[in-house]
Amino acid sequence: MNQSSMNPLVIKIGGSVGTDLAAVAADLAILASTGRPLIVVHGTSAAADALAAGAGVPVRHITSPSGHVSRYTDPEMLDLYVAAAAGQMNKRLVSLLQAQGVNAVGLSGLDGRLLLARRKTAVRAVENGRQRVIRDDFTGKLQAANGDLLRLLLNAGYTPVIAPLAMGQESEPLNVDGDRAAALVAATIGAEMLIILSNVPGLLADFPDESSLIPHIPAHHLAQAQAIAAGRMKKKVLAAGEALSGGVHTVILADARIVQPLQAALAGAGTVIGDQTLITDH
Amino acid sequence: MNQSSMNPLVIKIGGSVGTDLAAVAADLAILASTGRPLIVVHGTSAAADALAAGAGVPVRHITSPSGHVSRYTDPEMLDLYVAAAAGQMNKRLVSLLQAQGVNAVGLSGLDGRLLLARRKTAVRAVENGRQRVIRDDFTGKLQAANGDLLRLLLNAGYTPVIAPLAMGQESEPLNVDGDRAAALVAATIGAEMLIILSNVPGLLADFPDESSLIPHIPAHHLAQAQAIAAGRMKKKVLAAGEALSGGVHTVILADARIVQPLQAALAGAGTVIGDQTLITDH
Repeated sequence: MNQSSMNPLVIKIGGSVGTDLAAVAADLAILASTGRPLIVVHGTSAAADALAAGAGVPVRHITSPSGHVSRYTDPEMLDLYVAAAAGQMNKRLVSLLQAQGVNAVGLSGLDGRLLLARRKTAVRAVENGRQRVIRDDFTGKLQAANGDLLRLLLNAGYTPVIAPLAMGQESEPLNVDGDRAAALVAATIGAEMLIILSNVPGLLADFPDESSLIPHIPAHHLAQAQAIAAGRMKKKVLAAGEALSGGVHTVILADARIVQPLQAALAGAGTVIGDQTLITDH
Repeated sequence: MNQSSMNPLVIKIGGSVGTDLAAVAADLAILASTGRPLIVVHGTSAAADALAAGAGVPVRHITSPSGHVSRYTDPEMLDLYVAAAAGQMNKRLVSLLQAQGVNAVGLSGLDGRLLLARRKTAVRAVENGRQRVIRDDFTGKLQAANGDLLRLLLNAGYTPVIAPLAMGQESEPLNVDGDRAAALVAATIGAEMLIILSNVPGLLADFPDESSLIPHIPAHHLAQAQAIAAGRMKKKVLAAGEALSGGVHTVILADARIVQPLQAALAGAGTVIGDQTLITDH
């Protein structure tokens, strides 16, 4: 079967400290060698934090009234975030994949209008128990993805590697959540599966007890899963729900820290959200 | 005439302080609106210097025995150079072009093996009159460009914007000269013209006297031009020669600092190297 006739798989690689990118790249190459078209979306947090630390720029966070925590991306941080996301992290992954024989092409959401977002011009934040409104945050709410550009590259044998930056309505770069960007890409491209790798084994019923891993969540139990999810996992479950709503059959939340994280995820490790039958086909 | 049937124009935009990128982007948009397919290659020097200054990393240079000066790109500098080139500078240009309605796609030489180079593992340098060999410099000598990827994007209506990074033989990122990268791209894609914009009006017979601009250099006078060129201009004349050898008919060295730098270059301002008749056709 040639590459373009198979349904693409979307893989999100976390940007936190602890992920062995070289090991993930080697595992991606095994999957790519089966002819399966792949799209990779990556995070940036550790690279952006390191670049900011080197530049003496403090990393600040915004806590929303509902308890979500996100990076405070003012213009100074945005400039470093773009450098870390589209520069360092994206090219590190492209380089590692190329070294494994995968013909990766790195893109950000700005390129070819790949990811369009709307900037949140007034963000409510809670600080020391009081609410205030932040107006210089360059974070975006994702609106649409350019599936044509991704198909153009996939059909020509390239593997798109996407940095978590979107283009705002004034063509400005915006920081967007990598998990939700991956969900939007998977839904737009008609992927049957999205795998989200991070530094936990999956959704834990009793965080951080890793023996409390929930192996399967049917689509109609997503609300309960959202209630269980803690911290960063909240956004991953949200992203999983967005992917399923967009027509993706299966989302797997899996551990990036093991030797062959994708092979393990496809063998049933991690938390499988949605349709369980598909993962046995790979 | 549709875009794909016209011969592409390659434009190099300098990375030095003083170039008004927004003005250049607006002028590129005028040219793109005529249906002419464009490929943009950019420099990075000011962005890399600023990022290094912020991070407290000293910017060092290597002077070759023949007097050429280049950036000393050790691993620490390389990491910042990648961030500045593929991150900050590339996405700034993509964003400015998108704001003008040009559907720009940013790439580095790593992406899709766009620019392949060979790392100079032992570089002879002159310091205080003495020669030494530098072994941790990640600068590359360009070998080949991937014209298929550029044609794929051009034919789909995208404008490639290329950061001056190439991929070495171990898939590692390498710093490469932007002017010579632009020349290689122009030759590979079969461009009839290459325009190199920088912060001088063109080749000056008596640098820095701008009234001594040389308006035209026939291809067979390139050796004399090389003898006249001073400083950074030496590499631009070298790049022009490489482009002509590769089948490009005309190279224009022109001033980036004026209001419509490309319109002025196409109207005959700057130094025209090679065939003069083509510039009246635009």
